[in-house]
Amino acid sequence: MKYADLNCDMGESFGAYKLGQDAEMLSYVTSANIACGFHAGDASTMRRTVKLALEKGVAIGAHPGLQDLIGFGRRRMEISPQEAYDIVVYQIGALWGVVRSEGGTLQHVKAHGELYNMAAVKPDLAEAIAEAVYKVDPELILFGLAGSEWIRTGRKAGLRTASEVFSDRTYQADGALTSRRETDALITDDREAVAQVLRMVNEGKVLSQQNVDVGIQADTICIHGDGEHALAFAKTIRDSLKKSGVVVQPIGQTMKVRT
Amino acid sequence: MKYADLNCDMGESFGAYKLGQDAEMLSYVTSANIACGFHAGDASTMRRTVKLALEKGVAIGAHPGLQDLIGFGRRRMEISPQEAYDIVVYQIGALWGVVRSEGGTLQHVKAHGELYNMAAVKPDLAEAIAEAVYKVDPELILFGLAGSEWIRTGRKAGLRTASEVFSDRTYQADGALTSRRETDALITDDREAVAQVLRMVNEGKVLSQQNVDVGIQADTICIHGDGEHALAFAKTIRDSLKKSGVVVQPIGQTMKVRT
Amino acid sequence: MKYADLNCDMGESFGAYKLGQDAEMLSYVTSANIACGFHAGDASTMRRTVKLALEKGVAIGAHPGLQDLIGFGRRRMEISPQEAYDIVVYQIGALWGVVRSEGGTLQHVKAHGELYNMAAVKPDLAEAIAEAVYKVDPELILFGLAGSEWIRTGRKAGLRTASEVFSDRTYQADGALTSRRETDALITDDREAVAQVLRMVNEGKVLSQQNVDVGIQADTICIHGDGEHALAFAKTIRDSLKKSGVVVQPIGQTMKVRT
Amino acid sequence: MKYADLNCDMGESFGAYKLGQDAEMLSYVTSANIACGFHAGDASTMRRTVKLALEKGVAIGAHPGLQDLIGFGRRRMEISPQEAYDIVVYQIGALWGVVRSEGGTLQHVKAHGELYNMAAVKPDLAEAIAEAVYKVDPELILFGLAGSEWIRTGRKAGLRTASEVFSDRTYQADGALTSRRETDALITDDREAVAQVLRMVNEGKVLSQQNVDVGIQADTICIHGDGEHALAFAKTIRDSLKKSGVVVQPIGQTMKVRT
Repeated sequence: MKYADLNCDMGESFGAYKLGQDAEMLSYVTSANIACGFHAGDASTMRRTVKLALEKGVAIGAHPGLQDLIGFGRRRMEISPQEAYDIVVYQIGALWGVVRSEGGTLQHVKAHGELYNMAAVKPDLAEAIAEAVYKVDPELILFGLAGSEWIRTGRKAGLRTASEVFSDRTYQADGALTSRRETDALITDDREAVAQVLRMVNEGKVLSQQNVDVGIQADTICIHGDGEHALAFAKTIRDSLKKSGVVVQPIGQTMKVRT
Repeated sequence: MKYADLNCDMGESFGAYKLGQDAEMLSYVTSANIACGFHAGDASTMRRTVKLALEKGVAIGAHPGLQDLIGFGRRRMEISPQEAYDIVVYQIGALWGVVRSEGGTLQHVKAHGELYNMAAVKPDLAEAIAEAVYKVDPELILFGLAGSEWIRTGRKAGLRTASEVFSDRTYQADGALTSRRETDALITDDREAVAQVLRMVNEGKVLSQQNVDVGIQADTICIHGDGEHALAFAKTIRDSLKKSGVVVQPIGQTMKVRT
Repeated sequence: MKYADLNCDMGESFGAYKLGQDAEMLSYVTSANIACGFHAGDASTMRRTVKLALEKGVAIGAHPGLQDLIGFGRRRMEISPQEAYDIVVYQIGALWGVVRSEGGTLQHVKAHGELYNMAAVKPDLAEAIAEAVYKVDPELILFGLAGSEWIRTGRKAGLRTASEVFSDRTYQADGALTSRRETDALITDDREAVAQVLRMVNEGKVLSQQNVDVGIQADTICIHGDGEHALAFAKTIRDSLKKSGVVVQPIGQTMKVRT
Repeated sequence: MKYADLNCDMGESFGAYKLGQDAEMLSYVTSANIACGFHAGDASTMRRTVKLALEKGVAIGAHPGLQDLIGFGRRRMEISPQEAYDIVVYQIGALWGVVRSEGGTLQHVKAHGELYNMAAVKPDLAEAIAEAVYKVDPELILFGLAGSEWIRTGRKAGLRTASEVFSDRTYQADGALTSRRETDALITDDREAVAQVLRMVNEGKVLSQQNVDVGIQADTICIHGDGEHALAFAKTIRDSLKKSGVVVQPIGQTMKVRT
């Protein structure tokens, strides 16, 4: 049996500012990465988003980011491993409070934006964050870029990890994502994107830009929630996976099945 | 046997800005109210403060405040009960994350500044906050002004409550604190302050400004951490209580003894 | 000759968060109240909005608010007159910097949300803000609710004032706005709204909810920028005023003509 | 005649958080770099600091920083030249508002922390900031590290520039500051520090760590305001300069004399 988890960033509204179409996306994804108030989100948005996710049976994860609301956590900031540790502990805790008050449980942690990007290549940051997650709750699943520091250090820290793949990004022969600076970084054709996902999930392989197959672990697939197209694409991915016989469910459930 | 708990606000530094003398105060108090990043405090300060408290065996409480860093949570803001609920859930959760990552447990919640003052007289705010505390963890003890809405609504919500008294404030015949606008609101003489505390703890009474004794529940005594005088006064109160035979310990321990 | 100024709040986006339809609204209004980064807006949004306004020949005003981004400046906060003074000086200055860097000039100041509402009835706040405006630039025009403290204290401070009226709000026999808590506070019918505006501008009168005519000074008319309906309504008001022979132009130009 | 300007960062308090000893430092320095609310400072602190500076006849400069209060503007953030431009325009404007409301004028702009460090070596950032300063007011003097991009791009933009030197930092043979990562980066002996300053001001030379004299332009000397030692050292520097015949006055006055 093959399994796939579809994850999406959520709860990114802030006060009077609305972002995303969370209620609709929650019909298609199986894991929600909920912003925790640093790069986006606020206490009230978190409550509303958690409530919606619980109603739809979508698993909940903390989506901690850099403390840079105006930059949406997308601007590189030089933070120390200790700072990374501290802001991740705080943000997971905050969401844990919300989830617990709504009667749910936390499944995973996925870092946001530049925090995600930096730790994918900086072992000291990845280790600090993995330790933060472990210290708050060793049962949490750490989401990270397939083949990156996230996975290595997460496992070393004693955490279960979920290797994340992207439907709309191309890959290099070494398994890395093609840099966004390259012209061939993005897959804009939906059929290609779906085909890539199906192959990653069913065969554990992706065809690199060098025309060579690369092995890849595809535990969870990142789905974008913004753009008018997002809902339709989420539905297509989900339907295609199901049609090909893949069980689409939260990674936490799959891990329970497997062990 | 008589018991007393000494609580003090802590962890109010922010980034490069240092406030208070937490390490020293932790030698005298038994419960630490740790700021959670809204009116003061930040993720790193919280970790350091929690660590210190655990080392000294001081019980830890969340000290949630209004989201007004520049005003230190001391400016009245009109927030809805739902907003109060949300910011309290968030802040307790954030501190819970820190406490758990350091291997400790949360004992209590005490609101800060104007959030404390407003809810003392507004039942809907007090109810919302009591519900927030209960939903996150029904074992948490709610600290509140003795005789105020905090105590009534906390109990109604199913929480254990700790009635808080002040050593340096005078009381009215109805048990209320004398308003700070009155000239006789503060007790500036240390001996008087100590005597008032001893009587509140040992006899459950306080002499009001109207020269009439008033019954008062004194579960926990608020000690101020700022001012050069603060440490000396904390030591005096603690020593005086012990000398009079009172057991000075965290309220959570006392409640376990009692039940 | 009759003159009218149409003003609208603008520049309320923040980082990744977009709000309003400023570029379109600038085709209809004559004065733009640009948020200054406290309740909404940021440095980049301010530059973009100022640029657009200058291109369209729309006069620019500072729109200072309470320092409460999450509450969009709409939550009552107890601030001292000194605090009000300070935040208004700061925000006008910030926008002045932007306007000057784009080669323009500032025409007016209109406070936002609860800062506007509070000062309309609290003379000490209104005086502090009027003084702040005067001290930064005595040539600035102070916008304020017709008949309120804004107008009285603005004049006393030596400022030119613009009495603001609302197209979609009903009035009381004493010239005050009907409280939003009342069911008859809002005018939802566009024709009624337009008729009220035309009468206020052309006759200086408004029919109160008590069915009595009240004299009202209508120097500038507040137009809302949010809602799908906003653009169409702005166009209607502008066209109707022009058709009735009213010159629709920035209040600053009208005041030059008059003096 | 030789001239020297002593500049110091000021106004870095924030709400309840106090930092520095501005009132005392203002007795010794001639140019105050006042924080503008992004990395430190707030509207009320700015007013108080500006007032003090004007009373003491100290020239006022804007001290814009990165929008990172928790990191005090000392953490490297990847911002675009456009973002740098926008936050500098905003912050200069904000301080301009305060200065004008107090009846003073702005003399200069000196960037803070990592914004200063990054632009010293990144021409695109330095150009963007120089343009921002020029667009707000071409009469403003741009402070920057002697020999760095600040000076080159400032002049190219049409601004007057002031080359800044440090009393407590050692220099390399190419005129650059010794990196703080090196053990010999700091001068801890006061006499050495004073001697270095006197030589830089009087001879335009500094002895590098490679034991070779390097030519250096010393228009303004950075004095640190923090540390118990700061006041005594500021006094020593000022007295020593005066004793050696140097006129210690704001750079703006010196430039007027020279031209």
